[in-house]
Amino acid sequence: MPEIRQDPIGGRWVIFSPARSARPHDFESAAVTHTGTVCPFCEGHEHLSSKEVFALRHGGSSANQPGWQVRVVPNRFPALTADSGDIDPAAREPGLAILPGWGIHEVIIESPRHLTNTSQLSTAELADVLAIYRQRLGNLAAIDRVRYGLVFKNVGLAAGASLEHLHSQLLGTPIVPSTVIDELTGSDRYLQRHGTCPWCRMVDDALGDGLRLVAEEGPFVAICPFAARFSWETWILPREHAHHFHRVEESSLAQLAQLIRRVLTAMDRVIPRLAYNYIIHSAPFDTHAVDHYHWHMEILPRTAGIAGFEWGTGYFINPVLPEKAAESLGRADRGE
Amino acid sequence: MPEIRQDPIGGRWVIFSPARSARPHDFESAAVTHTGTVCPFCEGHEHLSSKEVFALRHGGSSANQPGWQVRVVPNRFPALTADSGDIDPAAREPGLAILPGWGIHEVIIESPRHLTNTSQLSTAELADVLAIYRQRLGNLAAIDRVRYGLVFKNVGLAAGASLEHLHSQLLGTPIVPSTVIDELTGSDRYLQRHGTCPWCRMVDDALGDGLRLVAEEGPFVAICPFAARFSWETWILPREHAHHFHRVEESSLAQLAQLIRRVLTAMDRVIPRLAYNYIIHSAPFDTHAVDHYHWHMEILPRTAGIAGFEWGTGYFINPVLPEKAAESLGRADRGE
Repeated sequence: MPEIRQDPIGGRWVIFSPARSARPHDFESAAVTHTGTVCPFCEGHEHLSSKEVFALRHGGSSANQPGWQVRVVPNRFPALTADSGDIDPAAREPGLAILPGWGIHEVIIESPRHLTNTSQLSTAELADVLAIYRQRLGNLAAIDRVRYGLVFKNVGLAAGASLEHLHSQLLGTPIVPSTVIDELTGSDRYLQRHGTCPWCRMVDDALGDGLRLVAEEGPFVAICPFAARFSWETWILPREHAHHFHRVEESSLAQLAQLIRRVLTAMDRVIPRLAYNYIIHSAPFDTHAVDHYHWHMEILPRTAGIAGFEWGTGYFINPVLPEKAAESLGRADRGE
Repeated sequence: MPEIRQDPIGGRWVIFSPARSARPHDFESAAVTHTGTVCPFCEGHEHLSSKEVFALRHGGSSANQPGWQVRVVPNRFPALTADSGDIDPAAREPGLAILPGWGIHEVIIESPRHLTNTSQLSTAELADVLAIYRQRLGNLAAIDRVRYGLVFKNVGLAAGASLEHLHSQLLGTPIVPSTVIDELTGSDRYLQRHGTCPWCRMVDDALGDGLRLVAEEGPFVAICPFAARFSWETWILPREHAHHFHRVEESSLAQLAQLIRRVLTAMDRVIPRLAYNYIIHSAPFDTHAVDHYHWHMEILPRTAGIAGFEWGTGYFINPVLPEKAAESLGRADRGE
C-alpha cells in the first residue's frame, strides 16, 4: 500500500510505492559505452584541459605537467563565467528578468589514474580530495562577489556525467541557489516550530533508534532520510551542529573520507555499477551563526528517471522505504 | 556569454549557456533496445492488462476484446491506489508527516497498433485521444475526494518511459500537486503586480512580435517559454483565457490535435528520435473562476540529464535560447 511522506525541511512530498518496482520494461537499461576518445583528465594529457589553478603535486613537479595527485582547472565549458559582461539593454523585455551569467566554475580532477568511482580511491586519497574541496571553498569565500560555493559530482551517464574520469565540480555564484534558500527557509521554520535544527534531530533520532542509520565513523554519521527522493539515497553529516563545510576540522577529514567510502562501497554491493550524484550542502558564505542550518553531503543514486509524473506533480516516487534501504546498506557495509 | 533568466510565474532560474553544447562526451547516447517481450498494450493482448474502465470501440465489439481504438485501464503498478487504508498509528514518528497513498492512476492506451510517438497518430486519432482526456478528467472532477486531475505522457527511455507502446497516464489526487500550487501562487502574484494573467501576456507577446512563437492553429498557439528549462521546450495553450482543460470546446479538439502533431513533427525533424514528456497543466477542480490560471500543455524534450548541478542549485542549464528554438521549430514546421 503506497504512503506519502513529507520532507520535514523542504516540504517536498515523496510517494513510497513498493509495487512500482515490479513494473515491466520495454527498454533495457541504457548501454553505457566509453567512446574511446583520449581522456583529457588522465596524467600526461594535461595539455588537453585548461591550465591548472591549483594542484596537489609530488615534490618538484611543474604546473600543467605530470606528477600531480589532484588537479583543479577552470571548466572549459562553464555554466557561469567570470568574464560575463552586462545584459544588452535592447535584449530586455518588460516584466521579464535576465541577469548576466557571472560565476566561477572549476573542475577538480581527483586522480591521475583513469578511475571512474569514488570508492576506487584509497581513504587517504579521498581525504586529500576533501581537503581540496575545503580549501577551494575557503578561497571562494574570500571573493567579495561570491555568495555561495557548491561542490558536486556526477558519476555515470544516468547521473548526467559527460566524462567518466573521476572528477567533481566547484561552482561560485553571486546569488544563493534556490535549493539552499528553500533549505534555509524550511529549517528556520522547523527550528521555530520544534526548537531544534532538523538535521540535529535527524542525527539524534537515527542514533537513538537506529531506524534509518547506515553507518557511523568518528564525528560523522550516514543516514537514509525519512522522505528520500531516490532509492538508497543517503546523507552524510557531522553529529555536532556545524553550518559550513569549509570550516570542518582538517584532522577529521580521514574519518569523513572513510565513511563516504564505506557508503559508496555498500551501494556498489547492493546496486552494481550505480550512477549517482553527490552534493555538499553548506550555508551561504555570509551567514556566520545559523542555529538551523547543518552542512551535509547528499548522495543521490540514480536508478530511476525523472518522468512526466515528477515534472507534473513536483512529487517523487520511490519504491524503497528508507528504513529498508538503511538496513540493506548497513548489512552490505558489514559484509553480511 | 551565459545569461540567467527567471521564469515569471514559478520564479525558477535557468542558465542559458550555449558554450555547454560543445562539451565532449565519454558516453554514447543510451542505446535503447526493445527487449522483445510481448506488448501488453497491443490489440489482441487485452488479457495482459487490467480490465478496461472505458474504451472507444468500433460498433459491436465487446469489452476487453479487440475492436477498440483508445482504451483506458487502471495502472497495474499504481503510484497511488483507491484501496489504500489508513496509516498504522505505530508507524508515525513525532514531527514527521505521513499520508495514505490514496488516488486514482489510469493508463490511456492511445492506439491498438504498436506506435511509439504521438506524431504517428493521425489528427483524427489524436483528437479522439484528447476527447478521452477531456472526458476522463470530467469524470474525476465529479468524484468528491479527488481535488486534482493530471494527464501526462512519457515517450522514450530518457523521458522515463517503461513501455514504448503509445500511452498516457491519468492521475486523480486528493491534494493539489506542488507544481500546480507553485503555479497558482506565482501567477496570482503576477496578476497582482502586472494586472494580467501571465500566460495571456505570453500569448499576446508571442503573437505581437513573433519572437518565441512556434506555430498557431485556430484558437491555440505553440510558444517556447522565456525561461525554458529544456532545449526546444514548447508550451501549447489557448489564446483566450481558460483555466480547465476538461472544459475545452469539443469542436476545437481537432485543431488542438493538429497543432500538437505539427509541433511534435517539427521536433522529430530537428532532433530525430527525441525522448519527451508532455503534461497538461490545468486548474484544480474546485476552483471555479481563476483570473490568473490558464491551462496549457508543456512539451519537455529530454536531450540532457538532470545532474548534480541541477539537484544542488535548483537551477536548470539550457544551451538553446528559446528565441532560437522557436525559429528552428517554426522552420521545421514549414518544411524549410
